[in-house]
Amino acid sequence: MPLQTTPEPAVSHDTMWGIQKPSAGPGIKLVTVPVPAVGPKDVRIRVTAFAICGTDLHIIEWDRWAESRIKPPLVFGHEFTGVVESVGSDVLLVKPGDRVTGETHIYCGLCYACRRGLAHLCQNLKILGVDRQGAFADYVVIPEGNVWKLHPEIPEEIAAVHDPLGNAVHTALAGPIAGLRFAVFGCGPIGCFSVGILKASGASWVAAIDKNPLRLELAERMGADLLLNVEKDSIARSILDRTDGRGVDGMLEMSGHPQAFRDGFDALANGGRVSLLGIPSAPLEIDVAKEIIFRGATVQGINGRLIFDTWYRMEALLLSGKLDIRPVLTHVLGWSDFEKAVELQRSGKAGKIVLKRDHP
Amino acid sequence: MPLQTTPEPAVSHDTMWGIQKPSAGPGIKLVTVPVPAVGPKDVRIRVTAFAICGTDLHIIEWDRWAESRIKPPLVFGHEFTGVVESVGSDVLLVKPGDRVTGETHIYCGLCYACRRGLAHLCQNLKILGVDRQGAFADYVVIPEGNVWKLHPEIPEEIAAVHDPLGNAVHTALAGPIAGLRFAVFGCGPIGCFSVGILKASGASWVAAIDKNPLRLELAERMGADLLLNVEKDSIARSILDRTDGRGVDGMLEMSGHPQAFRDGFDALANGGRVSLLGIPSAPLEIDVAKEIIFRGATVQGINGRLIFDTWYRMEALLLSGKLDIRPVLTHVLGWSDFEKAVELQRSGKAGKIVLKRDHP
Amino acid sequence: MPLQTTPEPAVSHDTMWGIQKPSAGPGIKLVTVPVPAVGPKDVRIRVTAFAICGTDLHIIEWDRWAESRIKPPLVFGHEFTGVVESVGSDVLLVKPGDRVTGETHIYCGLCYACRRGLAHLCQNLKILGVDRQGAFADYVVIPEGNVWKLHPEIPEEIAAVHDPLGNAVHTALAGPIAGLRFAVFGCGPIGCFSVGILKASGASWVAAIDKNPLRLELAERMGADLLLNVEKDSIARSILDRTDGRGVDGMLEMSGHPQAFRDGFDALANGGRVSLLGIPSAPLEIDVAKEIIFRGATVQGINGRLIFDTWYRMEALLLSGKLDIRPVLTHVLGWSDFEKAVELQRSGKAGKIVLKRDHP
Amino acid sequence: MPLQTTPEPAVSHDTMWGIQKPSAGPGIKLVTVPVPAVGPKDVRIRVTAFAICGTDLHIIEWDRWAESRIKPPLVFGHEFTGVVESVGSDVLLVKPGDRVTGETHIYCGLCYACRRGLAHLCQNLKILGVDRQGAFADYVVIPEGNVWKLHPEIPEEIAAVHDPLGNAVHTALAGPIAGLRFAVFGCGPIGCFSVGILKASGASWVAAIDKNPLRLELAERMGADLLLNVEKDSIARSILDRTDGRGVDGMLEMSGHPQAFRDGFDALANGGRVSLLGIPSAPLEIDVAKEIIFRGATVQGINGRLIFDTWYRMEALLLSGKLDIRPVLTHVLGWSDFEKAVELQRSGKAGKIVLKRDHP
Repeated sequence: MPLQTTPEPAVSHDTMWGIQKPSAGPGIKLVTVPVPAVGPKDVRIRVTAFAICGTDLHIIEWDRWAESRIKPPLVFGHEFTGVVESVGSDVLLVKPGDRVTGETHIYCGLCYACRRGLAHLCQNLKILGVDRQGAFADYVVIPEGNVWKLHPEIPEEIAAVHDPLGNAVHTALAGPIAGLRFAVFGCGPIGCFSVGILKASGASWVAAIDKNPLRLELAERMGADLLLNVEKDSIARSILDRTDGRGVDGMLEMSGHPQAFRDGFDALANGGRVSLLGIPSAPLEIDVAKEIIFRGATVQGINGRLIFDTWYRMEALLLSGKLDIRPVLTHVLGWSDFEKAVELQRSGKAGKIVLKRDHP
Repeated sequence: MPLQTTPEPAVSHDTMWGIQKPSAGPGIKLVTVPVPAVGPKDVRIRVTAFAICGTDLHIIEWDRWAESRIKPPLVFGHEFTGVVESVGSDVLLVKPGDRVTGETHIYCGLCYACRRGLAHLCQNLKILGVDRQGAFADYVVIPEGNVWKLHPEIPEEIAAVHDPLGNAVHTALAGPIAGLRFAVFGCGPIGCFSVGILKASGASWVAAIDKNPLRLELAERMGADLLLNVEKDSIARSILDRTDGRGVDGMLEMSGHPQAFRDGFDALANGGRVSLLGIPSAPLEIDVAKEIIFRGATVQGINGRLIFDTWYRMEALLLSGKLDIRPVLTHVLGWSDFEKAVELQRSGKAGKIVLKRDHP
Repeated sequence: MPLQTTPEPAVSHDTMWGIQKPSAGPGIKLVTVPVPAVGPKDVRIRVTAFAICGTDLHIIEWDRWAESRIKPPLVFGHEFTGVVESVGSDVLLVKPGDRVTGETHIYCGLCYACRRGLAHLCQNLKILGVDRQGAFADYVVIPEGNVWKLHPEIPEEIAAVHDPLGNAVHTALAGPIAGLRFAVFGCGPIGCFSVGILKASGASWVAAIDKNPLRLELAERMGADLLLNVEKDSIARSILDRTDGRGVDGMLEMSGHPQAFRDGFDALANGGRVSLLGIPSAPLEIDVAKEIIFRGATVQGINGRLIFDTWYRMEALLLSGKLDIRPVLTHVLGWSDFEKAVELQRSGKAGKIVLKRDHP
Repeated sequence: MPLQTTPEPAVSHDTMWGIQKPSAGPGIKLVTVPVPAVGPKDVRIRVTAFAICGTDLHIIEWDRWAESRIKPPLVFGHEFTGVVESVGSDVLLVKPGDRVTGETHIYCGLCYACRRGLAHLCQNLKILGVDRQGAFADYVVIPEGNVWKLHPEIPEEIAAVHDPLGNAVHTALAGPIAGLRFAVFGCGPIGCFSVGILKASGASWVAAIDKNPLRLELAERMGADLLLNVEKDSIARSILDRTDGRGVDGMLEMSGHPQAFRDGFDALANGGRVSLLGIPSAPLEIDVAKEIIFRGATVQGINGRLIFDTWYRMEALLLSGKLDIRPVLTHVLGWSDFEKAVELQRSGKAGKIVLKRDHP
C-alpha cells in the first residue's frame, strides 16, 4: 500500500495540513501547505469532516484517468463539510461560523451552458480536488456561488456526503418516479442512496443489482424490493418475471459496468428511461437498434447536480425524514484513519465512510 | 328528504334494480329497468359495490348544473366495481368472471383530442351515469376501452373508488413532487387521497386546508404536516411562515371555493404549480397579474384521469403499500343504506362511503 | 401634456443627461444627474439608443401602479443599447468598447428562485428604470450578470428592443409550436413580435386580434394568417370556424384585456396552452370550470425572459434571418424627439419607436 | 438482379395483383393473390400510389434482418396512399371513396405501452408489409385505428410518403427546435425531410452530413446551411468551428452509421439532444462516459410516429406551406417501373421515388 503518511504538523497560521498527491504515480502524502487565499467572491471553510469518493481512489492509485487529468502536487478530496472561517469582500450568502458544504463543480458562469442554467455542464468546468486544491485539508476555499448553507438539523456525517448524495438525487429525480418500477445497477453508496430516494419518491418497486453481498444488503436496508446478484442471477429475466413481463419503467446505471448496460436495457419497458451516472472505464458496445431505438428509450447522461435545485430537494427529503441514508454510512472514523478508510473502501467491506476531524 | 325508495324487485333475467333520477326535480327512485344490452365492443358488469360522488348529490338535489345536463329518467352513479358478466364479440381484454372497474369518461376515439392521446379530454365526452346509464344498478355496460381489470390483491372497497382516487392521482402526479412542498385545498375524499399520494411520492411537506374538523382529521391521518382551518387560520400567512417565506412549490385545488384560489396563489412560490380539480360553482375573480404572471405560475386544469397511465400508477401505489387510503373510507354500508349514505355524506360527517351489494 | 423638458446640459465628466420622473405626479423632466458609479461586478454602458415601453408611459402618466411602485426622483427607461464605457474590477464578460444591451431584471442570485435557475422570478427582483436608475440617460450601470454582448450583425435599432422582443420569445417558446395553430391577443409591439416568432418557429396558422387597424396591419406584415378586429368580429367563433371546430393549440395573451381572456379560452382546443404576458389593470373574472378545468388547459404566467436561454434563442432567430422584426419598428427618431415619440405611442399610430442618441 | 416479374393479371373480383417475396432468398415476384378480407373494424383501401422504403430493399435482397423477420410468401410494402373501397361494420371514421393513407404500426391496443398512449411502441407491434400483408398490391387492409384521412389539398405523391415523412416529423419534433442549431446525419429521404422540418420549425442553423453529393444537394434544397461530406470533411471540427465552439443543440441520426455516432456526439453542445432514428446494422461502440455522461446529453430512441399527434402536425406543416418536400421526391414513376425504381434507389441516384398506379 503506497501511502506516505509521515505527518508534517501545521506550524503557523499561514500553513495547514493536507492530504496530497505529491507526484505522478501511486501513493499520497500528508503535507503542510499554505492556507489557501480568499478572493473577493470566495469563502474559506474550516473542514470538519470529509469522505472518500471512488474518484479519490483513482487519484491515489494513479490510473489512466488520473494520469491524464491530475497535475501533482495536489491536495485532493471533494466530499466535505465544515464551518465558514472567512469570506471575501463581495460575499453575501454566508458569514463566519455558518455550517456549510459545497457544490464541487466550479463553473465559469460565462459560457453557453452556464448562461442557460446548465452550470453543472459548464464548458470550463473545474472540479474541486481534481482540477484545483481540494478538501482533504484543514481549510478549503470555494466561490460563494458554490456554497451550500446547511440547515441546523442536518448532522455532520450526512453533510459530509452531500456531493454523492446529490448525484443520486439528480439521477433519480431526472424523470417521473411515483407509481413506477425501477432497477438500480450498482449498489455502491450512490446506488444505495438512489434506492432510498426512489422509494421515498413513490417508486412502487425497485430491484437492486450488484455482485457484492454486503452492498446488496445495504440496498435492501435502503428499501430495495428485489436483490439480484450478477454472479448468480439472470438479471433481465428475473426483472421481467417480477414485472408482468413489462420491464421496469426506469433504470439507473451506477456501476459503469458493460454488463449492466446490457442487462438494464433488456429489462426496460418500451418507452422507459435510462439514467446514466456510473462512469464506464472504456467505450462499450451497445445494440442501439434493439435497446434504444425499437424500445423508444430515453437515455440521459447525468453529471454532477443541478445547482442548486438538486440541493433544495435533497435537503427537503432529508429534513422531512422521508430519506434516511444512515444505513449506508457504515463507518465514521477520524482523519488519522485515512489509510484504514481507503483500505476498507477498496475491499468492498464498507458502504460510505465518513472521516471526522480528530486533531485540533 | 325527497328520496323515493319503494323497492321494485327484479322479476326476470331481462330486468334489474337501479337507482334512478325519475324526472326533472329533486329526489330519486328505486326502479326496475331492462338490463342494458351488450354491443360487440362492450362489457357488461355485475356491480358488487359502488360509492356516491359529489356529482351524484347534485343529481339527487337537482341543482342548476343537473338541470342543464341530465336527461331523466336516468339510472345514475359512476363510482363502482364488479365482475364481468358478459362480453361483446370483439372483446379481448376481459372475460366473464374477471373483477373489474371502469374509466367513466366514455370517449369517442375519433376526435382531435382522442387521436392525440388526450382521450380524457375527448370533444364528444360522455360521462357514465351523467350522459348515459350509470352504475347504481345490478348491471352496468361500458366499452372494452374503458374497462380496468383489477389486480387480485385490490380489495373491493378500494376498487369501488378508483374513479375519485384516479382524479387525485392524476392531479398530484401532474408535476414533480419529490423533495417539494405542497398545499391541498379541500379535504373531501379526493383532497385526502391527494395528501396521501403526495406524501407517498416524496412531498417533503403538505399543508391541508378545510373548514370541517373531521375532514382535517382525515387529512392528518393521510399524512398532512400542517392542518389549517379556513374559519380560524390565516392560510397564506401560516403557510409562508412554515416554508421560510418561500411558499409551497405546488398547490392542489380540490374545493372549488373562491377563497382557496386567493389563499392558494398567495401561498405559492414563484414558478410554482397550481393544479385545479375542484369545480367552482360560478366564475371567480383572479388577480391574474399578481397571482399568475408576476409569480410565473403554471396553472393546470385537471379533468378525469389519463387513460390508462393514471390507472397503472394508481395500482402500483396501492399494491406497493405506499398508498393506504383506508382512513378516508370511513363507512362501508349496504345498498339498502343508500339514503343513509346520502345523508351522511351531505352532513360532512363522513369521508368516502362505499356501499356493497346486499341483495342477491 | 405634462412633460417638462427644459434641457440641463451635462457640464462635466461626472454628470450626465437623463430623463427623470422628478416627483409624484404626471410629467417628466430632462435633468443633469451624476454619472452612476461602477461597482466591482458592474458594467457602465454609454447608451446609444433606447425605446419607450408601455411601462414608461405609466410612469410618465403616473397611474396607480406607478404611484405604488416608483420612488421619485428617478431616471427611468429600460429598453436600450449602447457601448461598454468602463467595467468593475471583477468583470470578465465584456470590456470597454463592446456593443451590449442588458437584461433588465436585476436578480439577487441568492434566493430560492435564483438558486434554482429561475432568476427571472427572483424574490428580490429589481427592475431597471423602475426600482433603480434606468437607461434614458447618457450612461446606465448594470451588473455583469445582466449584460448581453451583441453579435456584430445585430443592428442598433434591433438591439435597443431586445427587452420586449425577449418577452415575446419567452412567451412564444414556452411550449411546442411547430405544426400547431395559435391566436395572439393584442398586437402592440410584443404581440406583433410574437406573431413573427410563432411563424418562424413552424406555427401552421396564427390569428391576430386587436381593435387598432394599424396594429393589425403590422401583425399581418409579421405573418398573421387571420386578422380579427374585436370591434367588428366574433373572435372565438371566427377562430373555431377556421380551425375545423377544434380551436387553437395555443393562445398568447399580450393585451391584458378581460375580453381577450374570455375569447381566448373559448377559442382554445382541449388540452391547449395559454401563455399570459399582458398585464390586466385589475383582477378579472374567469369561468375556471369551463375554461380551464374541463378544457384541460395549461395556463402559464410569463414574466421577463429566461436568463439567458431566451437571449441565445432570440439572437439565433435574428441572425438566421428567420425572424425579421423591422416591420414593427415603424419609427426611428432622435432622443430630442422624446415627447413626440411618447405622443405617437399613446396615439396608437406607431409600432415600436426607437430613439437614437442625437447629441454628442 | 433477382426480380421475378412475370405478370399474373388479376382475373376476378376476388383476386388482385401484388408484389411478393415468394420464398426465403433474394428476389420478388409479381403475383395474383386473393383480395384481403375486411373484418368489422377494418378498412380496405384501393392503393393508388406507393413508395419503396429501405426496409423493402432489405426484404428484396434478403439480408440477415429479413431472414430473421419475414415469413414468405408475403406481399410487402408499407408506404402507400389510396381510396377507401369498403369498410367493416364497426367503422365510423371513413367511408368508401375517402382518400386515405395509414399508420403502418399495427398496435394491439391492450398492452402496457398501448394503454398508456405509447401505441407506437406496442409490445405486440405488427408492421404492415413486414409482419402482415402489405401495400404493394391493388388492395390493402388496415384497422380503422390506423387510417389517416387525407385533407383534399394533400397531393397524391406526398400522401404516398406520409410514413417516412412522419418518421422525420416525429424525430425532429421530439424536442425544442426554434432558435437552436442542429446536425442531421444521413441525407436519405428521411434525413432530407428532417432538414426541411427543422428549418420550418425555427432551427437557426442546420448542418447536413452524407457521403453522396446528390443527397447533400437535396439536403441543401431542403434548407441545410452547411453541407459536409464524410469522405472529405472533418465533421465535428467543421461543426464546432461554425457554432462558436459550442456545438449543435441537437443531433438527428438518420444514417445508422457508426461514424455518425462518433461525429455527432463530438459536435454536440453540453446538455444537447440526440434523436436516433437510423438503424445501425450491428451493435456499435460508444464512449458513454465522454459522449453521454460528461456531456449531459439526452439520447432518444425514435420509432414510428406518435399516433396521431405526429400526423396532425405533419399535415399542418404541409398545408401551411411551411414544409415543401417536393425537392426530395425526385422521381414519380408507374408501378410497372418497380424494378427500375429499385435499381435507382439502390444506386443512390434518387431521393424518394413514388410509383403511381398505371394499370386499371
